[in-house]
Amino acid sequence: MTNRIYNFSAGPAVLPLSVLEKAQRDLIALPGVGMSVMEISHRSAPFEAIIGKAEADIRALAGIPDNYKVLFLQGGATTQFSMVPLNLLTEGRTADYVMTGSWATKALKEAKRVGATHETGSTADTGYNRIPGDAELAFTQDAAYVHMTSNNTIEGTEWHRLPQIPDGVPLIADASSDIFSGPIDISKFGLIYAGAQKNLGPSGVTLVIIREDLLARSPKSLHTMLNYNIHADNGSLYNTPPAFGIYVLGLVIEWLLEHGGLPGIAAVNERKAGKLYAELDRTGFWRPTAQKDSRSLMNVTFRLGTEDLEKQFIKEATAANFDGLKGHRDVGGMRASIYNAFPERGVDDLIAFMQEFERRNG
Amino acid sequence: MTNRIYNFSAGPAVLPLSVLEKAQRDLIALPGVGMSVMEISHRSAPFEAIIGKAEADIRALAGIPDNYKVLFLQGGATTQFSMVPLNLLTEGRTADYVMTGSWATKALKEAKRVGATHETGSTADTGYNRIPGDAELAFTQDAAYVHMTSNNTIEGTEWHRLPQIPDGVPLIADASSDIFSGPIDISKFGLIYAGAQKNLGPSGVTLVIIREDLLARSPKSLHTMLNYNIHADNGSLYNTPPAFGIYVLGLVIEWLLEHGGLPGIAAVNERKAGKLYAELDRTGFWRPTAQKDSRSLMNVTFRLGTEDLEKQFIKEATAANFDGLKGHRDVGGMRASIYNAFPERGVDDLIAFMQEFERRNG
Repeated sequence: MTNRIYNFSAGPAVLPLSVLEKAQRDLIALPGVGMSVMEISHRSAPFEAIIGKAEADIRALAGIPDNYKVLFLQGGATTQFSMVPLNLLTEGRTADYVMTGSWATKALKEAKRVGATHETGSTADTGYNRIPGDAELAFTQDAAYVHMTSNNTIEGTEWHRLPQIPDGVPLIADASSDIFSGPIDISKFGLIYAGAQKNLGPSGVTLVIIREDLLARSPKSLHTMLNYNIHADNGSLYNTPPAFGIYVLGLVIEWLLEHGGLPGIAAVNERKAGKLYAELDRTGFWRPTAQKDSRSLMNVTFRLGTEDLEKQFIKEATAANFDGLKGHRDVGGMRASIYNAFPERGVDDLIAFMQEFERRNG
Repeated sequence: MTNRIYNFSAGPAVLPLSVLEKAQRDLIALPGVGMSVMEISHRSAPFEAIIGKAEADIRALAGIPDNYKVLFLQGGATTQFSMVPLNLLTEGRTADYVMTGSWATKALKEAKRVGATHETGSTADTGYNRIPGDAELAFTQDAAYVHMTSNNTIEGTEWHRLPQIPDGVPLIADASSDIFSGPIDISKFGLIYAGAQKNLGPSGVTLVIIREDLLARSPKSLHTMLNYNIHADNGSLYNTPPAFGIYVLGLVIEWLLEHGGLPGIAAVNERKAGKLYAELDRTGFWRPTAQKDSRSLMNVTFRLGTEDLEKQFIKEATAANFDGLKGHRDVGGMRASIYNAFPERGVDDLIAFMQEFERRNG
C-alpha cells in the first residue's frame, strides 16, 4: 500500500491492514445481509452473530473463565474511571490506587468523588519513570479493590508482573494500552477495562471484563448507563451499542487468533520493542526515559540531548513518513507507540532512520 | 446496487448510499493522510479538520446561533437521560417531563434519581397514540426545564408544533429520531440531544446542542464524562471521541447540505410519509395507529385485522427484501421507519407491495 505511512500514534492507533481491507470490502453491504454493518438493527440476527462471535473469540483468545462477563461499552477508559468506583466502592470501604502516572491520577480523581481512597506505590518522585516494587506497596485492610494501570502510555512504563495484593481483594486494571499484547491470567483480576483505540480497534468502544460476583455490588440507585449489572444482564444491548466499533474490534480479535493468539503476538511485541530499546541503549545519543525493568513494550519513550534536536528529529521523521513520534505534551520528547498492529518492518525502518539521523547529528 | 435491500429499521437505520461509498473509498487511507480515519490521533490536524467541518456544517444546516455549543458525545440518548438532570436539575427545583411514550418514560426514570420531577401531558390513557394539546399541559412554576420527546419512535407520533411553556424555562428535546428531518428553530430550545443512529450517522455518537448559559449549572462535583461544561470547554475532545462515527456523521450532514438542506429534506419526508399514510387510510384494510394530527413522518406505525395476518405480511415483506417492518416488541404490529436517508423509491415499492398483499388478503 504505497499510500499508507508508518503510524506511531499513541491512540487512536494503527490497525491491521487486513482488517481495514475486510471492513472496506463489506462496508456497503454485509455479504448475505444487503445492508451496511452501520445500518443493521442491533436486535437483528446479523448483529447478534457479530457481537456473539466477537465475545466468543475474545474468550478463546484470552482464556476467559466462565464466571466473567465480557461487556462492550462506550465512553472510553475515562468513563470507567467513574464506573469502577460508582459500582464497586461500597459504603464504608476504601479503594486503593497504585499511582504510576497521568492516567492513574485521573482515575483516582473520579474515585474521590465517590468515597474513600488511598494512594499507594506512587513513583511520582522519579517522574513516574518506573513501576513500583512490591516493597513500596502498602494496602488498606479489606479494601474495596486495588486499581492499577497496566501500561502507562504517557510515561512509557509497563507492569511485567502483577502487584502482590491481599487475598480476597479484587484487582482492577486499566489495560487500555497493553490489553492482549501478550498472555494474561484473567482469573487474577476482578475487572479489566480498556478503551479499544490502541490494541483492539477504533475509538468509541470500551471492553470490560468483570468477575460475576462483583456485579452484586452495583447500587440499584445508580444511573442505568453507569451500571455494570444492567449492561451484563442485557448482554451489552440495554441500548444501541457502538455497532461498527464492535464489528471492527471483532475483526482485530480474529486477526490475533489467526496470528498465533496471545503467545504469538507477545513474541512479535518483544522482538519489536527489544530492537528499538537496543538501538536507544547503543551509544548514549538517545536517552530512553523509563527505567530498564519498567520499560513498556507498547510505548517507547525517549529524549535527545536538547529540545532543539528533538524538534529537528520529529520534523525530519514526519517528513520521511514516520508519523506520530512526538511525545505527549505533558512530558515532551519522543514516543514510538508500537502496539500489536504496528508492523515490525516499521520498527526496522525507524531504527535505520535513527541511525542515519545520529550519523548526521551525533 | 443489486446487493442492497430496503431497510425500514428504526435504528441503526439506512444511510445515504453516497455516504457509504465515500467512507468505503477512503477507509484504508484518507487522501493525503496515509492512515485510516480510524487510526489517526484525535489531536491531529486531519481529525481537527474533520470534527471542525462537521460542526461548521451542522451550524450552517440548522442555523445554530452563536450562543449554542455543539457537542459530540458517546452513550446514546440513554446517557442523556441521566446527563440532562445531573447537569441541569439544580437543587430545590423541579423538572417537568411531557409524557408521550416509552422513551419519555425512560428519561423520567433517570431524572427521578437526581431530584424532583413532575409529569405533564401524559397521553398514556390512549396508549400514547397522540401528542398532547397545550390545554393538557400544566407546568411547574419556575421549573428547572421542560423535557419533551420530539418524535416517538415506538408509538409513531411526532410533535408538529412546540409546546407552549412558561417564559424563561429551558425546553429540552430528545430529538433522536427526527433531528434535522426539517427546519428547526434552535433558539426555542435550551438543549437538544440525539443519538446519531437514526437521522445522523452510525450508532456510537450523540449530538448535543446546548445554550451556553446552561453550562453554568453543571456541578463541579459531577463526574468528568457526565459534565457538559467540561465537554464544551474541551471542544468534545476531553478524551478520545468516537472518531469514525463523527466522520460519517459529517458526511451525512454534507449530504443534507447538498440536497437542499432542511427545507429540501422536509419536502421529501412529507412526500414519503404522505404517500404511505394515504395508502394506510385508503380502504380500511390497514389500520394506522397514531391519531392523524400526531402522525410521525419518520416512523409510520400500523396494524392489520389480526396478528396472524400481521405475521404473514411481515414474513412476505421480508422475503421480498422489505426489511425491518416488524413493530417494536412493546406494541406489536408494523412500523416503517423512513428517516431522511430512506429512498423515496423504497416507499413507492412498499406501497405497491402492500396493494398486492391487500388484493390477496383483503
